[in-house]
Amino acid sequence: MMDMSKLEEQLAFLMEADKLKNIYRQTYTRVNDLPPMPEGSNAAKPYPRRENDAEHSFSLALFTAVLAEYSNEPIDILKTMKMVLVHDIVEIDAGDTYCYDAAGNETKAAREKAAAEKLFGLLPETQEKEFRGLWEEFESGETPEARFAAAMDRIQPLLLNLSRNGLSWKEHGIHFGQVEKRMAPIADGSKELHSFIHGLLEEARDKGILPE
Amino acid sequence: MMDMSKLEEQLAFLMEADKLKNIYRQTYTRVNDLPPMPEGSNAAKPYPRRENDAEHSFSLALFTAVLAEYSNEPIDILKTMKMVLVHDIVEIDAGDTYCYDAAGNETKAAREKAAAEKLFGLLPETQEKEFRGLWEEFESGETPEARFAAAMDRIQPLLLNLSRNGLSWKEHGIHFGQVEKRMAPIADGSKELHSFIHGLLEEARDKGILPE
Repeated sequence: MMDMSKLEEQLAFLMEADKLKNIYRQTYTRVNDLPPMPEGSNAAKPYPRRENDAEHSFSLALFTAVLAEYSNEPIDILKTMKMVLVHDIVEIDAGDTYCYDAAGNETKAAREKAAAEKLFGLLPETQEKEFRGLWEEFESGETPEARFAAAMDRIQPLLLNLSRNGLSWKEHGIHFGQVEKRMAPIADGSKELHSFIHGLLEEARDKGILPE
Repeated sequence: MMDMSKLEEQLAFLMEADKLKNIYRQTYTRVNDLPPMPEGSNAAKPYPRRENDAEHSFSLALFTAVLAEYSNEPIDILKTMKMVLVHDIVEIDAGDTYCYDAAGNETKAAREKAAAEKLFGLLPETQEKEFRGLWEEFESGETPEARFAAAMDRIQPLLLNLSRNGLSWKEHGIHFGQVEKRMAPIADGSKELHSFIHGLLEEARDKGILPE
């Protein structure tokens, strides 16, 4: 017989994780969108829609599956994919903190730690350890998998932003130096991807998409 | 030196896959949502929002990571996760066909095959073979990984629907027998999960959430 209460714990975690679909980020999805809305709503034309954490995590998992060969060091791809799937889950309780928001980033660690206790605590003990461990490993950035996951976490929104001619950077008055600095850790995960991305950034600067 | 044109192909695929965020399904996300909208839009209150294919694929990958132990047969979890990440990608060109739409399902196979040619064709040859192969394997349903992935693909929207008291079933006049039939293949992937899910369905019927 299956231990039903274990399965119920797992499903409770999965249903709580569904709320990642309601945490919106600063980055816009690649093409204009119009989510089905209640009758009588007047946003009748597709518009640039911000992506949410579930969509972002989906993208990171697919990026990992496709780009793993560029990691500086050999990585366990399954472990990396699980890591990116849960890397933002604490934002369900702690909210999304924009990466260029200095004040928000000061309180971020404490808020996210409390959220991790609660959310991973929904899982049965063995999986609580595994997934909480993956989240902590991602935060510490001290393993090949964490370094590659962090590279994906930076590359994916950058490519979306570039496909939107820097729309979310413009809204926040972000300049080339800030993005260049934020992208530097990509090299810890993949020198090849960092070098390629840096080229794209310089191109964006030269085209005036990112002010100097 | 890295082969830049290979990387560019990989990124072209990943950016095309971003469009899964714009393909909406019939199922609603678990809690009410209000995506950030342009100023002047009047959907000012959170509402039940349909989930999109990127969100759905994210959920299936996380479901797979958490529930793999219930598979009838041993599965390669990494392979299954890659499979669920791309299982709906053809809908970028072919659109989402509601599972209870008989007419749409007649033309579905041909539309999706053409889309697979085009979308997986963006990838470098080795990965085109791998990911197209995973999609075909999912469609055929003849391996342990495909059977487990298909089980996830049925369980996840069912749980969301139940958390919404059957909202999308009500909209389409779906009754117990139809859902029971659609859920039957879960047993090919996991007898234990099928038995648990069947219990939830009977409960929903007894509560009047799903008409007899």
